[in-house]
Amino acid sequence: MPDDHLGLDWPDTTIANLGPAKIDSPLVKSLPNAGFDRYSEEHCRVLINPYYQPGSEMQTDPPSFERAGPRRKIYFDPAKLKVAIVCCGGMCPGLNNLVRAIVLQLHYLYGVHNIVGVRYGLQGFIPDYGHELVELGPEVVMNVHGRGGSFLGMSRGPQPVEDVVDALERLNIGLLFTIGGDGTLHAAKVIADEITRRGLKTAVVAVPKTIDNDISFVEVSFGFQTAVEAATEAILSAHNEANGAPNGIGLVKLMGRNSGFVAAHATLALTDVNFCLIPELDFDMEGPGGLLQMLQERLEARGHAVIVVAEGAGQKFFTDQERGTDASGNPKLGDIGTYLKETINRYFSEKGITTNLKYIDPSYMIRSRAANSNDRIYTGFLGHHAVHAGMCGKTDMLVSLWNNRYVHVPISMAITRRRTVDPHGGLWRAVQEATGQGSLRNPA
Amino acid sequence: MPDDHLGLDWPDTTIANLGPAKIDSPLVKSLPNAGFDRYSEEHCRVLINPYYQPGSEMQTDPPSFERAGPRRKIYFDPAKLKVAIVCCGGMCPGLNNLVRAIVLQLHYLYGVHNIVGVRYGLQGFIPDYGHELVELGPEVVMNVHGRGGSFLGMSRGPQPVEDVVDALERLNIGLLFTIGGDGTLHAAKVIADEITRRGLKTAVVAVPKTIDNDISFVEVSFGFQTAVEAATEAILSAHNEANGAPNGIGLVKLMGRNSGFVAAHATLALTDVNFCLIPELDFDMEGPGGLLQMLQERLEARGHAVIVVAEGAGQKFFTDQERGTDASGNPKLGDIGTYLKETINRYFSEKGITTNLKYIDPSYMIRSRAANSNDRIYTGFLGHHAVHAGMCGKTDMLVSLWNNRYVHVPISMAITRRRTVDPHGGLWRAVQEATGQGSLRNPA
Amino acid sequence: MPDDHLGLDWPDTTIANLGPAKIDSPLVKSLPNAGFDRYSEEHCRVLINPYYQPGSEMQTDPPSFERAGPRRKIYFDPAKLKVAIVCCGGMCPGLNNLVRAIVLQLHYLYGVHNIVGVRYGLQGFIPDYGHELVELGPEVVMNVHGRGGSFLGMSRGPQPVEDVVDALERLNIGLLFTIGGDGTLHAAKVIADEITRRGLKTAVVAVPKTIDNDISFVEVSFGFQTAVEAATEAILSAHNEANGAPNGIGLVKLMGRNSGFVAAHATLALTDVNFCLIPELDFDMEGPGGLLQMLQERLEARGHAVIVVAEGAGQKFFTDQERGTDASGNPKLGDIGTYLKETINRYFSEKGITTNLKYIDPSYMIRSRAANSNDRIYTGFLGHHAVHAGMCGKTDMLVSLWNNRYVHVPISMAITRRRTVDPHGGLWRAVQEATGQGSLRNPA
Amino acid sequence: MPDDHLGLDWPDTTIANLGPAKIDSPLVKSLPNAGFDRYSEEHCRVLINPYYQPGSEMQTDPPSFERAGPRRKIYFDPAKLKVAIVCCGGMCPGLNNLVRAIVLQLHYLYGVHNIVGVRYGLQGFIPDYGHELVELGPEVVMNVHGRGGSFLGMSRGPQPVEDVVDALERLNIGLLFTIGGDGTLHAAKVIADEITRRGLKTAVVAVPKTIDNDISFVEVSFGFQTAVEAATEAILSAHNEANGAPNGIGLVKLMGRNSGFVAAHATLALTDVNFCLIPELDFDMEGPGGLLQMLQERLEARGHAVIVVAEGAGQKFFTDQERGTDASGNPKLGDIGTYLKETINRYFSEKGITTNLKYIDPSYMIRSRAANSNDRIYTGFLGHHAVHAGMCGKTDMLVSLWNNRYVHVPISMAITRRRTVDPHGGLWRAVQEATGQGSLRNPA
Repeated sequence: MPDDHLGLDWPDTTIANLGPAKIDSPLVKSLPNAGFDRYSEEHCRVLINPYYQPGSEMQTDPPSFERAGPRRKIYFDPAKLKVAIVCCGGMCPGLNNLVRAIVLQLHYLYGVHNIVGVRYGLQGFIPDYGHELVELGPEVVMNVHGRGGSFLGMSRGPQPVEDVVDALERLNIGLLFTIGGDGTLHAAKVIADEITRRGLKTAVVAVPKTIDNDISFVEVSFGFQTAVEAATEAILSAHNEANGAPNGIGLVKLMGRNSGFVAAHATLALTDVNFCLIPELDFDMEGPGGLLQMLQERLEARGHAVIVVAEGAGQKFFTDQERGTDASGNPKLGDIGTYLKETINRYFSEKGITTNLKYIDPSYMIRSRAANSNDRIYTGFLGHHAVHAGMCGKTDMLVSLWNNRYVHVPISMAITRRRTVDPHGGLWRAVQEATGQGSLRNPA
Repeated sequence: MPDDHLGLDWPDTTIANLGPAKIDSPLVKSLPNAGFDRYSEEHCRVLINPYYQPGSEMQTDPPSFERAGPRRKIYFDPAKLKVAIVCCGGMCPGLNNLVRAIVLQLHYLYGVHNIVGVRYGLQGFIPDYGHELVELGPEVVMNVHGRGGSFLGMSRGPQPVEDVVDALERLNIGLLFTIGGDGTLHAAKVIADEITRRGLKTAVVAVPKTIDNDISFVEVSFGFQTAVEAATEAILSAHNEANGAPNGIGLVKLMGRNSGFVAAHATLALTDVNFCLIPELDFDMEGPGGLLQMLQERLEARGHAVIVVAEGAGQKFFTDQERGTDASGNPKLGDIGTYLKETINRYFSEKGITTNLKYIDPSYMIRSRAANSNDRIYTGFLGHHAVHAGMCGKTDMLVSLWNNRYVHVPISMAITRRRTVDPHGGLWRAVQEATGQGSLRNPA
Repeated sequence: MPDDHLGLDWPDTTIANLGPAKIDSPLVKSLPNAGFDRYSEEHCRVLINPYYQPGSEMQTDPPSFERAGPRRKIYFDPAKLKVAIVCCGGMCPGLNNLVRAIVLQLHYLYGVHNIVGVRYGLQGFIPDYGHELVELGPEVVMNVHGRGGSFLGMSRGPQPVEDVVDALERLNIGLLFTIGGDGTLHAAKVIADEITRRGLKTAVVAVPKTIDNDISFVEVSFGFQTAVEAATEAILSAHNEANGAPNGIGLVKLMGRNSGFVAAHATLALTDVNFCLIPELDFDMEGPGGLLQMLQERLEARGHAVIVVAEGAGQKFFTDQERGTDASGNPKLGDIGTYLKETINRYFSEKGITTNLKYIDPSYMIRSRAANSNDRIYTGFLGHHAVHAGMCGKTDMLVSLWNNRYVHVPISMAITRRRTVDPHGGLWRAVQEATGQGSLRNPA
Repeated sequence: MPDDHLGLDWPDTTIANLGPAKIDSPLVKSLPNAGFDRYSEEHCRVLINPYYQPGSEMQTDPPSFERAGPRRKIYFDPAKLKVAIVCCGGMCPGLNNLVRAIVLQLHYLYGVHNIVGVRYGLQGFIPDYGHELVELGPEVVMNVHGRGGSFLGMSRGPQPVEDVVDALERLNIGLLFTIGGDGTLHAAKVIADEITRRGLKTAVVAVPKTIDNDISFVEVSFGFQTAVEAATEAILSAHNEANGAPNGIGLVKLMGRNSGFVAAHATLALTDVNFCLIPELDFDMEGPGGLLQMLQERLEARGHAVIVVAEGAGQKFFTDQERGTDASGNPKLGDIGTYLKETINRYFSEKGITTNLKYIDPSYMIRSRAANSNDRIYTGFLGHHAVHAGMCGKTDMLVSLWNNRYVHVPISMAITRRRTVDPHGGLWRAVQEATGQGSLRNPA
């Protein structure tokens, strides 16, 4: 779904024109097994900003991304290349399909037969964990495309870059595919930098994965649509629960640490939601314009209500102490779902109003679901383009969809900042119209 | 699914032969709009115990249920009859379909056009709650059959029987359909008794509703199969989560306060479950045969594990104080899901073993789901048979399926005790074979 | 779903008391890997007729089936036994689950490790076809339970019994599981007879498979509920098509050569059907009471109509010549779907009435679907009971569900005649009420 | 899914810069019920060609589309405006959602309360058909979003433009929304032209609808993803059928008269397809490189095969006479599905090779399905943007998605020619890699 953002105020679009880095090219071969009569040439680029104002002067050398696709010449010798694939972070629909697409494309199109899967994320590079590598070929991945989850396994958190690159050297990996979100992109960048520092010829190609849909310059992340479909089922349950009891309240917590895309889209898909709370939009709890008063008015008018909250919303209601920090010392999220449940129950209890709140947290059931057909197709293309990019020596970059075209995005651009719901854009406007929730803010 | 129970040791089967009570029959009409050439005669009965041992003597006047079905003569005058329908207790797939079937059968087959829906359970009878009645006719119920939840609303808990019967008198209800579980059956019985005491001519017909499938003399409860299907999706998620992380543990809490039927059946449908814990089977937590040790061995052997626990399992791990009591002073259930999660995490943490436990509680998403086609058909038959029974003046009874035949069961029989999983029967044997979990008990 | 049939007029119920045949028992072992404390004893039987009329005398030695279940003593030596499994006839949801259940039960419970799958039905026994056998073990069947179709393959039609038994001898098969419908049961009986004639010690255990649900003394066939669920989706499409066009007619052909159970149940699940045509009920096309006139009245009243027709309905509209015969010389079915489509279109065209008929034939999409959770569970039990029966030397019998209990049925009983929808029973009564279609017959 | 087409060789892109027509604006009001702080200004446009070649000069006044969105000033007076909505052509998932979105946006955002639905396509304007108009308001459309089909009804074929515009005048319609494909766009253009000729102030806003996804300058049509998901289910059935029989062949006919997008995408989603035949790619039947020989080789190698064919493929195998013409004299499509079935069966029969071909035509089940969540969201945005466009007086245009942004496209551009699968683009390359089908052409 389109983002209304003009893209003009992105701070770092000039970096785009540098293009993705390429490792040195002493060896250049032609694409084997080809039979295609059309390649995507590197000098064809996609404008970052597709908008245009008649009368305004066209920018010279405007920010643009390199177009993705198979190239006439490849860098690596398929017969000698060893490839590694690693999935990091949290689960997301489509992971198995993506790994499958990469393996099949490497195997059948490029003739690369030496492919290993790194188990359980970056942990798989660190010998202490004792995770074995998995040999990957057509027979291993052929039937994984109907399964949710990640057959390679995943894990969160960083590992020492030296150890990872040591492993790449030790295993003689020439091309590494990293599948992951913001943290993984940061890690991939650091790995690529260390590779450069050591003067190695290993390419690092990232495929962006985020069920929150929150990576910049990625129009829509794979698995997102599947997640929204699953989220609507949870909301429908909440709606049924709310309708089935006097003063019924259905409360659904959805994913979205920094960005409320899942919550906003699921709200639009069902139109049974009365309040949609996301990290990007502040809201008041108390007071005449606050959530509690608005909720009470809704109950008085209709007898039931449905609330959808993204996990990163309302973090102002927690102190840093309450939220705690994770292993890396980063602040964790306060549990806004439970907080809302308790706050709402206490509010109505104090008012002597009997309500029936049902709280649903479907996150694991959403993220472990098998990809729908659209996400299967999309992961197929992402995998193919990642392979095309890697085989011709691109590195320190990710494959992405921009203006509905597949492009190469330098990692440093994608990690500049999170992609978020534009409070003034069309998506949020539609959510406001669908819910009629107003600002949920008290007058200043 | 069949229960292996012989039925021979049920304490009260002799009551069956008394048949359901019938209110007095000063007025007896023929079934209108008929056109049927075959009725179910009252003297045809269904044996409670279908087993037989050659050589053993056949019992004279063996325990049996009255067969359900339309009768040649009806008691109520359709033109004058006013009917009420009430749904009580917790949500269950198929409620709307059942109400729809009752209304359409009354309207089209018997010509009863005065039907009201009582909102929010027994509360709807009590004026203080202020819930309006809903007029029910074909146009109201025509399109509810694809929706989950309960469009009439429901509530838990008893209401004073005098007030309920006062309402029946005030509203001039001649036939009351109560849809609910064990508590509702108790209430229906008390209401029927009070009706008798007052000398009223109001019939009370119950349709058993229990997502736990735990009502005696009900072979399978409506909504149960839909619930099992939904439960398998949660277990599949747990399986995917467990497989996707090093030492991954998927823990799913399912419904089942006294009876583990949902947990047992869902375990058999997927065969990805390693431990299935139900209220009927005691298990040890600590010790060489206990859950924790067995779980550790499973993780060491396979790297991941899936646990399914019914909400009523393992209650011995809670003191009465911890469990608390509900509004009526009855003990509540300890939260075994959270308890297991914390106990397992602490156990492995103390052993220095890193595990990744994901806890899924899908209960609201299961119970609010729309009925599958089988439950739609089943609720249709239950509704029709409830109407047939009520229209010919049966009272203080429920419609049920027994030996795969529709029968009338006196309420007093169905509430004698809960139906539970037989630890020595075929269902539990199959679960044991599917999970390989052993007894989970320490040697004495 | 229960059949209202009293069962009393079945011609051959006395044969039941003979019990399934047993092959000689020179070797009797105890069940290995046991750990059960409860077995199903052979002398416990299940009454065929569960009905009872008070006052009537109880029948001495009433017709009954042997109860299924594990026995204390088994006939075959698991270490030496070789087992074969064959699927015959048409596709049906649950086939893979059933094969899986048989293999896992043999392997893990009884310790039988020599199991072969016969490919493509009885063809797989005939060397000329060149189909290789498949070795079956846990690793082969572990992941087939989510797939529709039949991974072993199937085929229709008989093969020479001598060749089949020659193959059994040559392969040294001690226990053969046949999965199939009426034709397969006949074949299994002939094979068992030939085995007896040759004095072999090979047991033949059948599991009844019929998506039409038309085998006698099988309460419900596996895959039937899944098929009904799938059929409702086709009917919903027909309903949407009919509603979307002026004088829209949705026509759906469903399976049901001799018995209209799928059509009848799917009609009840959706309640959008106006005419349900099944083989058991004759109907007129022309005339004041015929389908065409009734359809016209429906269109005039409501502007759209949905017709469901079982493939075996209306065969009187075809001559034997039009229907043709199959390879075995048996008459084939006339294509009633296409016939109805053309007849209806012609009728309205001649009347100058514009209609929009959409014809849907979803049969392949129904029968190749993966089993739902209930059919997964059911095939699990059927598979287990088939293994229990075979391991203790039962032969010439099938496992079945009767009065909601698992039983052994002699093949000769099950093939006496087809199970059909009782025109006077509760199922058809419900269909009539749901459709309001009347008799569709002209007055005599 | 992105089309690789550069868009540079579109013949008529210059027309884009003319922008959509606008009816005269004597009355200009501000958007009521607003509360937005951000509008989409008309002078902001979206480039048609987002590609860029460094070093090449930027085009002055490049072809671009007007950006869609709410405007600060509207043309129509909501209190006086009467709006009509009409759905034309074939069924498509999402129709009801789209009508719902238009009605709710008109009602709640703009305060337009006089909205009528025209039944059964353009027929609804012609009095002779006798179709009544439907008053549309929130209560009518509130619950249609979960239903497939079209509650307004549709019909194919043109109606006399004078009669349609007469009806618009007679009904005093100020704003007409037409929902339909290529034919409907042509009709909308003719209607708009006639409106201009008569000097009326009626705006005509089109929403493109095509399950074939074949309208130019529409990146993806609503309902397409839902259709692809449904198509994959049919292909999975074909796969199961093919695997279940010796030399099994599954043949699926999908929609796609001129464009094979559904077939191509469904092929990519499942990766069980061996041959994908679409209108854009010629193929030979006979000869060493033809389909029959390739199919035989596939069967010899693997024993089964799956073929997907779009309905418009292989039309060269039919004479004009065989294809016939429709009511308007346009050539109809030859039935390629049946032709393939018969040709393949005859081919193998003549070679003495037994095969089992199962032919599946799921079209009605695909097109009448309810929209998935993504298509629900998409139709919501399309409906909103159509209303924004219409309310500020745009006419003779359609709302579309281009470069993932919502835009206004002049109808004359969209009907220049059909959008088709680029035989040299990435989509077809992926299909070729997934199927390995080669060119299916004989050497010249």
